[in-house]
Amino acid sequence: MTSPVITQVKQFVKERVLGNEKVYDSLPNPPVRGYTEFQDLGLANWWVPKAYGGHGLSLEESVDIVEELAYGDAGLAFTLFIAVIGSSAVSLFGSPEQKERFLRPMGEAGITSATLGSERVAGSELLNLSTTAKRAGNTYVINGEKYFSTNAGFADWWMVIAKAPDETAGFKALLLRNPKSLPGVKVERRWPVIGVRGSANYQVSFQDCRVPLDAALEPNGVRILEVGLNPSRTLIAATAIGISRRIRDLCLEYAKDKALKEGTLLRNDVFAAKLGQMEMEIEVMRGACKTAARQYDALANEPDAMLSAGSLKSVIVAKMICGQLGWKIASVGSEMFGGLGYTEDSLIGKLVRDMRYVSIVEGGDDVLRDLLFHRHVLPGMAKKGA
Amino acid sequence: MTSPVITQVKQFVKERVLGNEKVYDSLPNPPVRGYTEFQDLGLANWWVPKAYGGHGLSLEESVDIVEELAYGDAGLAFTLFIAVIGSSAVSLFGSPEQKERFLRPMGEAGITSATLGSERVAGSELLNLSTTAKRAGNTYVINGEKYFSTNAGFADWWMVIAKAPDETAGFKALLLRNPKSLPGVKVERRWPVIGVRGSANYQVSFQDCRVPLDAALEPNGVRILEVGLNPSRTLIAATAIGISRRIRDLCLEYAKDKALKEGTLLRNDVFAAKLGQMEMEIEVMRGACKTAARQYDALANEPDAMLSAGSLKSVIVAKMICGQLGWKIASVGSEMFGGLGYTEDSLIGKLVRDMRYVSIVEGGDDVLRDLLFHRHVLPGMAKKGA
Amino acid sequence: MTSPVITQVKQFVKERVLGNEKVYDSLPNPPVRGYTEFQDLGLANWWVPKAYGGHGLSLEESVDIVEELAYGDAGLAFTLFIAVIGSSAVSLFGSPEQKERFLRPMGEAGITSATLGSERVAGSELLNLSTTAKRAGNTYVINGEKYFSTNAGFADWWMVIAKAPDETAGFKALLLRNPKSLPGVKVERRWPVIGVRGSANYQVSFQDCRVPLDAALEPNGVRILEVGLNPSRTLIAATAIGISRRIRDLCLEYAKDKALKEGTLLRNDVFAAKLGQMEMEIEVMRGACKTAARQYDALANEPDAMLSAGSLKSVIVAKMICGQLGWKIASVGSEMFGGLGYTEDSLIGKLVRDMRYVSIVEGGDDVLRDLLFHRHVLPGMAKKGA
Amino acid sequence: MTSPVITQVKQFVKERVLGNEKVYDSLPNPPVRGYTEFQDLGLANWWVPKAYGGHGLSLEESVDIVEELAYGDAGLAFTLFIAVIGSSAVSLFGSPEQKERFLRPMGEAGITSATLGSERVAGSELLNLSTTAKRAGNTYVINGEKYFSTNAGFADWWMVIAKAPDETAGFKALLLRNPKSLPGVKVERRWPVIGVRGSANYQVSFQDCRVPLDAALEPNGVRILEVGLNPSRTLIAATAIGISRRIRDLCLEYAKDKALKEGTLLRNDVFAAKLGQMEMEIEVMRGACKTAARQYDALANEPDAMLSAGSLKSVIVAKMICGQLGWKIASVGSEMFGGLGYTEDSLIGKLVRDMRYVSIVEGGDDVLRDLLFHRHVLPGMAKKGA
Repeated sequence: MTSPVITQVKQFVKERVLGNEKVYDSLPNPPVRGYTEFQDLGLANWWVPKAYGGHGLSLEESVDIVEELAYGDAGLAFTLFIAVIGSSAVSLFGSPEQKERFLRPMGEAGITSATLGSERVAGSELLNLSTTAKRAGNTYVINGEKYFSTNAGFADWWMVIAKAPDETAGFKALLLRNPKSLPGVKVERRWPVIGVRGSANYQVSFQDCRVPLDAALEPNGVRILEVGLNPSRTLIAATAIGISRRIRDLCLEYAKDKALKEGTLLRNDVFAAKLGQMEMEIEVMRGACKTAARQYDALANEPDAMLSAGSLKSVIVAKMICGQLGWKIASVGSEMFGGLGYTEDSLIGKLVRDMRYVSIVEGGDDVLRDLLFHRHVLPGMAKKGA
Repeated sequence: MTSPVITQVKQFVKERVLGNEKVYDSLPNPPVRGYTEFQDLGLANWWVPKAYGGHGLSLEESVDIVEELAYGDAGLAFTLFIAVIGSSAVSLFGSPEQKERFLRPMGEAGITSATLGSERVAGSELLNLSTTAKRAGNTYVINGEKYFSTNAGFADWWMVIAKAPDETAGFKALLLRNPKSLPGVKVERRWPVIGVRGSANYQVSFQDCRVPLDAALEPNGVRILEVGLNPSRTLIAATAIGISRRIRDLCLEYAKDKALKEGTLLRNDVFAAKLGQMEMEIEVMRGACKTAARQYDALANEPDAMLSAGSLKSVIVAKMICGQLGWKIASVGSEMFGGLGYTEDSLIGKLVRDMRYVSIVEGGDDVLRDLLFHRHVLPGMAKKGA
Repeated sequence: MTSPVITQVKQFVKERVLGNEKVYDSLPNPPVRGYTEFQDLGLANWWVPKAYGGHGLSLEESVDIVEELAYGDAGLAFTLFIAVIGSSAVSLFGSPEQKERFLRPMGEAGITSATLGSERVAGSELLNLSTTAKRAGNTYVINGEKYFSTNAGFADWWMVIAKAPDETAGFKALLLRNPKSLPGVKVERRWPVIGVRGSANYQVSFQDCRVPLDAALEPNGVRILEVGLNPSRTLIAATAIGISRRIRDLCLEYAKDKALKEGTLLRNDVFAAKLGQMEMEIEVMRGACKTAARQYDALANEPDAMLSAGSLKSVIVAKMICGQLGWKIASVGSEMFGGLGYTEDSLIGKLVRDMRYVSIVEGGDDVLRDLLFHRHVLPGMAKKGA
Repeated sequence: MTSPVITQVKQFVKERVLGNEKVYDSLPNPPVRGYTEFQDLGLANWWVPKAYGGHGLSLEESVDIVEELAYGDAGLAFTLFIAVIGSSAVSLFGSPEQKERFLRPMGEAGITSATLGSERVAGSELLNLSTTAKRAGNTYVINGEKYFSTNAGFADWWMVIAKAPDETAGFKALLLRNPKSLPGVKVERRWPVIGVRGSANYQVSFQDCRVPLDAALEPNGVRILEVGLNPSRTLIAATAIGISRRIRDLCLEYAKDKALKEGTLLRNDVFAAKLGQMEMEIEVMRGACKTAARQYDALANEPDAMLSAGSLKSVIVAKMICGQLGWKIASVGSEMFGGLGYTEDSLIGKLVRDMRYVSIVEGGDDVLRDLLFHRHVLPGMAKKGA
């Protein structure tokens, strides 16, 4: 029942990624080798529907794939799945023409896309966006600055979320092909991130950049983004599983040879307790990702239901718990290796830095707690005991 | 798709349990009123197969039912589901005659059963059992003392786990009808428990108690018990969901009227953050219970697979995470109500005491961590990156 | 150098308290036996200055004494030290006559006093007090209701904190002798608390109760209360040390005999790790209490400095960390004893309930965090790097 | 009352360190600029007795100094205080000649020393040392390899801890002047550490390196090291205070300008709660360091008492709680800054990495918990209630 893609991904990680962690951790020039190799294997954008030349894998299957990729390198995993935001948006809300133009090359040629949402002020509060898309004749004119956009520097198309004061929706999601060639577009910098450094994240500015009216997805751009974040947040959460498994295996490998009292660390009860707890937490993380993915998959062909749902509760839950338990595992792991673990000779330092992104990217826990309370707890108060 | 039984259970809790928490918390004489009422409604032992007169509900559905019952009273929930150990054992490993004798009255008349496993020394290490079942002619002679056995004082039949030195299996699970009437059996005391006090837990002794050879289930009694603990541990975990929801609702109700600064506690951001975190944790708990239940349900008709699996990993995971997150919720909740929460005028004290049982009963976390490490982590070391 | 009083207290606990925990936990009629015995030994109110017939012990010494008392029973400890609020207020702010009238009988006869501060709405936000003391001729007329007042039911005098709309101070602290005999005073109920049940806490109402003008302490009553809470909060924190030591010793005693694998729990590395962590935490708690006590002692003869300081930062810190680490110890401890720990045969259930009061009484952590931020963090922002 | 040295140190940090964090974090060539500047100001080795040309500051004062230094850069702080191990050992156990030779140049010229204790296998279990010092004529011949030795690459003298099979003590602490010029000594590598990168830590090997017999300190070298670790562990703990204060101030600065809902993050209650909790924890950390320092200072002139005490309990406590609370603060802080906090534009990433060393260097928590249990908890069991 397991998709052959998953087997290929495992093979890919084993052969091409393991052992190259330092390279990925060095902020290598994008796109990183693994990105191209993955593309060459025909695995890129594995979730794109078969009708558009993709493998048509579900989000539930994607959780497994991302877990494997992140076992190798979380930054590479992030690079390889982040286009899911834009492609899901197009799948759900695009016109047939838009699907042909934006989805098909992702499925057939394995090209990638980037989403430009967050800004300096509007990190998690999207309603505060200051980038605007004003109507002028048969174009939208985009002005503003976007902060953290993964893959934007080399993506073939962008989805840009902007305030659209002339529209009833208030916000638009605009699709830009060959975006770097457009007048008024400037990729300002690559962010010197402290983890997932195999990925590349960009700051981009727009100055009177004009795009045709049919670049817009319908309806509301912020709502579309919120929907598109469902799969990417789920897969960010899934990277935490891969990183955690890697930490676990690093601990086991170390413990095997580490002398302690009369035996080795591997035979020590405190070590066993820590690893038993980790194992439990890894299973909980995986369960939460799968639950979220199943809820998403069930709605994947129902744009209206998805729009009215917006951020799925199960997705928020998966992202929070994976970030929290993942950080706990990283914290415990980072104390395990003594002085060696405090040097670059060990991988643990990288894994801790990589793990941190899970609770930061696409909505920190403070924002998500607030969202859960106001969208899911307060409204439920009426239904006593619900 | 939801079973009508679940609707009935919600109704039952709302009408018969809510408001009577103090009664349940008073170590009332067993069987408690709710037990009999539930029986009268024909809901008792909802999981017994239809072929034996029951409702045939899955463990996944049972999670929902227990969640609802525990929202009302965890002790009552415990009373109502604990017979699942014995009945599952009989369902899986019983002969047709044993099923008729032990399962049918549970399905048709709603009678209950008790399992006598733990002892003074052998709490979680079942291999240290000191109760023995020695062969003498065509009987087993039982001697020993059993510690914490829920419902034993009024159950119609018992499943007793004992060392069987004459058998190759080494251990036997013996089924005793009308156990209190048997010579040599003595119910020594009811334990004065500090939580789930709507349940009744007994210490029982055996002195040369003789039972026929066909009282035994095949094969190994300890292994049978381990299998039988799968559904009960899952449902113990599920009580934590119900208790947590009750704590959440108690917090909301309190916050609605509690003045704070210029508004009410309900409008306070710190409160929102706490409740948002709680909500996330409740979902994680439910997800873990459902995952465990589905794994169990998938094996529910495969005695051999179940025997070779023994304690299911997902069940251990559910019990641990529900105990841990549940205690966290109880801890946060118990600080929420100021001085009032430190009096018996508030329900929170009872809910904290009830919650504690999740991490204690049927295997503490230290035992379960050790088990996870030795059965699931160490064996996986060979498979690098598995 | 150790005061002989401390030696006597240890002796007292060993001979009179240990073994009677169940009695103290039963909400016994006040004053409890230990209270009277302690009084008879001449130890009551050990902190009252020698000039007024007391032992004149410092708050730093009091931390040791309370730690010992709480090792026996936290409720008894609470009963024996809570009068420190009123007596400190009189020591610092009383006139010579007030000291003679209120302090001397505490020092010489060992009588107790109670403070009536908290109300239904104004738990921790004292500025919301609704009890009023209005001027009428040469009296104050008190009206209102006070919620949690320890010892009020049998104390010889009360300090009542009330809104005084006719005064520039805005609030008054009024001293009432033989308060229960005053017209308009009614002890409404004893609170059925869920822990520290060896103490007795009362709800009291005032209806047109008249007291002479010289019943008032100068200056502002809320400020006086805030100062008086410094020693009591420190000693509440100190009870957590005693309870924690008791939990630790209970664990050791249990572990000594508990079989585990090939040895006993006492020889298990996970147990050692837990107890090592506990020991560390106990030392941290004690250090925090001592630091707070020393800061208080340094100001004990400087009413003006004390008034301008109000709530001492070190005291807030001690109360918070003792509540938090104490609860952690109680949580770990309560999982240690298996099923037995979930019955009334074990003391652990009582100790967990007792511990909970540390984080609740006289200011919950939410209130204290807010206070620390607004009084100590924000003002320090100006001083960069301070 | 505050030593003028402390004022100078604050000035130094403000003028020379703040703003240069990136330089310190770049593994700069040792000795780092701040080291030389500090030396030039005559502040180096501030704890060396006045009799030997130093400032004679106590460990309690050193806590304040290190807190200030670590506010600037923890690696620089580590570099500047680590010589305290060797100098304390010489102060306590050295002959007059040894003091002249090793202590005076530290006091007068501000030169530094390094201690070579840990090895590949013998991280925290010093009894497993494999480096040997065998007697040959009137020399010791040293063979072996030392792992993490801070400052060794440029220190004027080393204290080497070695197994001495010919001595009754079993272990020796040997003092080596101009160690790098000695035949058989090789500085193998500088460790590429992942935090406190302003410090330099070396791996060193010895091959038949001969030193005169009077290079040895009396008595037992492992015991001497254990004593010498008291001040350095206390000061490692103190760095956590400085780093924590820096994190707190970084949060405040960020919150001042960060828009949130209708105001700024600084006015948000959840932020206030986090910072209030941090402030409490910082005070607890400082209190624990001061308590440890006072215990050490009280014994600083009593070599025999110090030897028999070995590792001071209060020092273990300070190191553990500072590492644990510091990591908690770093964890909370690292979630505070959104995406920006995940880039090198923010200092928080460095501070998290720096903080990690507190729980790793000179004994991880697992080792210290075990030590506390076996040296302080178990022996206390006899004294019931102690």
